[in-house]
Amino acid sequence: MSTKIILSEDEIPRQWYNLAADLPSPLQPPLGPDGKPITPDMLAPVFPMNIIEQEVSQKRWIDIPEEILSILYLWRPSPLYRAKRLEKALNTPARIYYKNEGVSPAGSHKPNTAVAQAWYNKQFGIERITTETGAGQWGSALAFACSLLGLECKVFMVRISFDQKPFRKMMMHTWGANCVASPSNETKAGREILEKMPDTPGSLGIAISEAVEAAVTDTSGKTRYSLGSVLNHVMLHQTIIGLEAKKQLEKFNEKKVDIVIGCAGGGSNFAGLSFPFVNDKINGAETTIIATEPTSCPTLTRGPFAYDLGDTAGNTPLLPMYTLGHNFIPAPIHAGGLRYHGMSPLVSQAVVEGLVTPKAYDQLECYEAAVMWARTEGFIPAPETSHAIASVVEQAKQAKEEGKEKVILFNWSGHGLMDLMGYEKYFDGQLTNYALPDDELQNNLKILENFPKAPENKTGKW
Amino acid sequence: MSTKIILSEDEIPRQWYNLAADLPSPLQPPLGPDGKPITPDMLAPVFPMNIIEQEVSQKRWIDIPEEILSILYLWRPSPLYRAKRLEKALNTPARIYYKNEGVSPAGSHKPNTAVAQAWYNKQFGIERITTETGAGQWGSALAFACSLLGLECKVFMVRISFDQKPFRKMMMHTWGANCVASPSNETKAGREILEKMPDTPGSLGIAISEAVEAAVTDTSGKTRYSLGSVLNHVMLHQTIIGLEAKKQLEKFNEKKVDIVIGCAGGGSNFAGLSFPFVNDKINGAETTIIATEPTSCPTLTRGPFAYDLGDTAGNTPLLPMYTLGHNFIPAPIHAGGLRYHGMSPLVSQAVVEGLVTPKAYDQLECYEAAVMWARTEGFIPAPETSHAIASVVEQAKQAKEEGKEKVILFNWSGHGLMDLMGYEKYFDGQLTNYALPDDELQNNLKILENFPKAPENKTGKW
Repeated sequence: MSTKIILSEDEIPRQWYNLAADLPSPLQPPLGPDGKPITPDMLAPVFPMNIIEQEVSQKRWIDIPEEILSILYLWRPSPLYRAKRLEKALNTPARIYYKNEGVSPAGSHKPNTAVAQAWYNKQFGIERITTETGAGQWGSALAFACSLLGLECKVFMVRISFDQKPFRKMMMHTWGANCVASPSNETKAGREILEKMPDTPGSLGIAISEAVEAAVTDTSGKTRYSLGSVLNHVMLHQTIIGLEAKKQLEKFNEKKVDIVIGCAGGGSNFAGLSFPFVNDKINGAETTIIATEPTSCPTLTRGPFAYDLGDTAGNTPLLPMYTLGHNFIPAPIHAGGLRYHGMSPLVSQAVVEGLVTPKAYDQLECYEAAVMWARTEGFIPAPETSHAIASVVEQAKQAKEEGKEKVILFNWSGHGLMDLMGYEKYFDGQLTNYALPDDELQNNLKILENFPKAPENKTGKW
Repeated sequence: MSTKIILSEDEIPRQWYNLAADLPSPLQPPLGPDGKPITPDMLAPVFPMNIIEQEVSQKRWIDIPEEILSILYLWRPSPLYRAKRLEKALNTPARIYYKNEGVSPAGSHKPNTAVAQAWYNKQFGIERITTETGAGQWGSALAFACSLLGLECKVFMVRISFDQKPFRKMMMHTWGANCVASPSNETKAGREILEKMPDTPGSLGIAISEAVEAAVTDTSGKTRYSLGSVLNHVMLHQTIIGLEAKKQLEKFNEKKVDIVIGCAGGGSNFAGLSFPFVNDKINGAETTIIATEPTSCPTLTRGPFAYDLGDTAGNTPLLPMYTLGHNFIPAPIHAGGLRYHGMSPLVSQAVVEGLVTPKAYDQLECYEAAVMWARTEGFIPAPETSHAIASVVEQAKQAKEEGKEKVILFNWSGHGLMDLMGYEKYFDGQLTNYALPDDELQNNLKILENFPKAPENKTGKW
């Protein structure tokens, strides 16, 4: 039996899947500062209209333009592997499959939407895209996409990462992007913060404020902003992962998937693999779909479903989502991509509806799983990905206890070659777990009191 | 037309190709310190006998054991791409194809032989392998291979790289290898050097001495040494690259290859792609086969074909090869894998026979080509690989001048994600070219005067 299945380019999915068309209850709209729903026109200074149309679309299937596919072919269809060596090491009757999204030029799933977003911007006549990045996964993916499409790319990178993790910045430079530490002197938002706090390490919230300001204040009208997760169109672009996986599982002769697992920060890699399977579940399939997160940033497992801002500074609409409060500052775990206070509204609602089950894992458990993975399956996983692997190991052990031949599928969202310092600290015993104290969480959630309430839903209808 | 062709696992080559069987003149033997040919028995304390048999084999085709293939399947068959975006950027009528060896867990072609060597050692009852590494590509590849096969791995890493480039060392740790800075206190050779020069930055020659000593002095008999390039069995294991490429070119409907290009340090990635095409050339095909190297370490373009030591300290046999003298210290270019004074005897003889044409490129020209590559084809190349890309660009421009639809194939030997500092220095204008002055070269070659002479050969027979 094969180790992996790689589809030919002819077999790539030609449409994205939009879960918004199938959720039992409709998505609640984003709200403006006045508590009223945001209209597409209000987003026009920030995003090109073709992307806004996708953001609010209720169409189930959306065609993928051929020119986007022609770039995705550089690494797609991505391989689906059977993790036979891990199965053997765990002595489990489970069959473990993983989608390897680390094969992209930027090393993660992020380019799936970066290429699409850059292409739609270019189609709309945009010449320059701004964005923010934390540890740099997203910024490097967008830099890559803009490079191949001939667009300028400006990245505001949180200063502490800019200084401490220079390699992602160097990737962006290699692809021709302009990457500056945030807060910067290039925006009003940045200058105001630097004046008050010249030594601030920066934050994702500040960087978003700068990137949005840099887009909307460009009087040429040729600049827009891009976001790498959370929003509906980003989830949409990632569904190519799960759609490919379904075809590949068929070639492995698997008729049924018991468990689907992905790690969730803003939600995009999780959504990308799982949404086609969420659709199956809505239509009656018996699949357990698990979104994993760090115990130090337990958005889905301990946050309320509420209206909250997407950023710290308040430059985004209010989104209906699980949240720890937009002022939440997570502990310094190495899985930087999972250190986000909120969650994709689509993923959030799938959890509300009982379609997706969240689970949280401690940092040390995740590193233990990641090292076991590297030493059996070879590829070194990103710290974010290790939160999916820890869950896979748990489920595979449970299958062994139960004596059941379960089929487990998960998203290997990216490689860890830019994150080796975390491994080294793990081996040196310098890492710890960070469970979020309940009083800290409750105190932080007070910030939500003045926002409109998101509707509770346990029935499948609002 | 497809961007890439990926063979299924069923289509992988099941035999390696041994050029030694087809060279017009037989390889000259390695010699001992007494000037007499080395016999297989003399190598037994260093290598397991099954590898020594491959080293001296004259068989044209050697079966690849199924268990080795089962590990290679983690990334093999590797994709063959057509570089259409680069062709467009160069406006060339040439069709450019590249084999992407960066898809392996260690990020280069090195695991092709690391897995094979680790497996043969294990078959022979060996439990522990020692090796040396410079910048760390080879050490990390062997650490990966040993991890999956359950062998201990000990890597002596040149101290200056150990200190300045910590990430490769961290990869080795993640795969469970023990990596120490060389010179170390763990060997007699290391201790003697540390006593004389406590602050030495180390060298590949010293590291080889330590690794060989650590293997041959282990009284359990369960330890052997492993080398990642130069030797015949290493070239053999890499030929899977070119054998796959031939099948893939057929699927691209290419009947004929005009130019084959690979960069050459010790020679293994070049040999891996090119040797099956060298065979075609011996049988009458009209193919130009180019081995590229840095002008700062111009082994093939300016060194003599001579008997020389493989290491600085004199712990290896004398090998018949192009060499700059075993005491040569190349300029500090970023392509660390090309900073070797010697060259694979098989590659060397193919050059002597006129089957392979060497060309040297300056560092800045290589970085310019690498950046052009990243911004058109997406994947960021290793500095070594950029020496092949510079030649591809040159040949594609020449095809344009000549108005010829040439087919160019080259080996994209590895990604540059662990080498981004070189790119950053290039962008900052901190890099220069280093042409080797002739008087320095001639002075250095005096060290060869007391060794036996390698036969001159321009006729196809010794």
